Amino acid sequence: MGFSPRLEQLFAALRCLPGVGPKTSQRMAFHLLSRDRDGGRRLVEALAAALDGIGECRRCRMLAEAEVCGICADPARDDGLLCVVESPADVLAVEESGAYRGRYFVLLGRLSPLDGIGPDELGLPLLQQRLRDDGIKEVMLATSATVEGEATAAYIGSLAERCGLVATRIAHGVPIGGELEFVDSNTLFRAIAARRPLAGESG
Amino acid sequence: MGFSPRLEQLFAALRCLPGVGPKTSQRMAFHLLSRDRDGGRRLVEALAAALDGIGECRRCRMLAEAEVCGICADPARDDGLLCVVESPADVLAVEESGAYRGRYFVLLGRLSPLDGIGPDELGLPLLQQRLRDDGIKEVMLATSATVEGEATAAYIGSLAERCGLVATRIAHGVPIGGELEFVDSNTLFRAIAARRPLAGESG
Repeated sequence: MGFSPRLEQLFAALRCLPGVGPKTSQRMAFHLLSRDRDGGRRLVEALAAALDGIGECRRCRMLAEAEVCGICADPARDDGLLCVVESPADVLAVEESGAYRGRYFVLLGRLSPLDGIGPDELGLPLLQQRLRDDGIKEVMLATSATVEGEATAAYIGSLAERCGLVATRIAHGVPIGGELEFVDSNTLFRAIAARRPLAGESG
Repeated sequence: MGFSPRLEQLFAALRCLPGVGPKTSQRMAFHLLSRDRDGGRRLVEALAAALDGIGECRRCRMLAEAEVCGICADPARDDGLLCVVESPADVLAVEESGAYRGRYFVLLGRLSPLDGIGPDELGLPLLQQRLRDDGIKEVMLATSATVEGEATAAYIGSLAERCGLVATRIAHGVPIGGELEFVDSNTLFRAIAARRPLAGESG
């Protein structure tokens, strides 16, 4: 083939990115090497700095540069409210919604006994300690709407209730802007089962 | 927002990759930092090594670790045949076809006067020198089948003919495995215009 080993290694390394296969990794490598070497340098530096400097917040397991992340350290947040999510990306999504001003707990996964992911892997001992000691009143479960996400929410909900706290689950239903005919039947089933009186919608 | 500056810098740096927007860059960053730190380290090292160690072959402008790339250095290649392509990825594609055993010349672009890309940017002085001095007999033009790619092929074809060489263009037509009804009309027009006697197909 006559291709350079460093190029082959770059193809292989780029394939660790999610959604990047053999063709895309080649396109990315050629782009970085023949058209955007400055961008490549910036990527090397930013990724090395992130890997060196970003760890887990010791209170909520969010990605953080310090021992405690910016949200945990923010005194303006509501200490009575804890949102449980699966991943750092979910924290970003909830923040972007603008609907939430409480604290977070990031599971970094969801219960999946067959894959060896149990309560310890999700940091539930740390979560239980916070549920007992941190003055939390409500636990809002924002795990994903999959079978495993639901099981995880149910499990953590029962932990919260055993501590005498309120456990809530974010609502599932028709997405805003969604045409009814394109909504799958499971979602529509949940939307109908969870219907509310019109007056209560705004509450 | 409470997000760390290094994370924001990583999002920004990942967006230099082709086809990666804000959402994908976040997904990639979270994947590397929470699920595949080893992959992230490998990417830092492979990309740094590639940027430091890979330059342009001084004969064909292909990406190469040495002064001259593996194909230019290979004595088993046919010196009489030169394939002109737009990008390093095109060299890979032609090599993978298995139909070609000659040399290459990589333009790293195509003629586009409005974007300031003229003969000098495409290395045509170097190409002309090779056409005169290197014992080349046929120049196979494998630039893309776009308006600019065709113009580039025509321009280089005339250079080759002025040097007394044969200039050929790779065939355009219906892709193998392509259903006629899904082929666009421009391609079908070219396929019909370039039809060949059945006996000649195998030649």
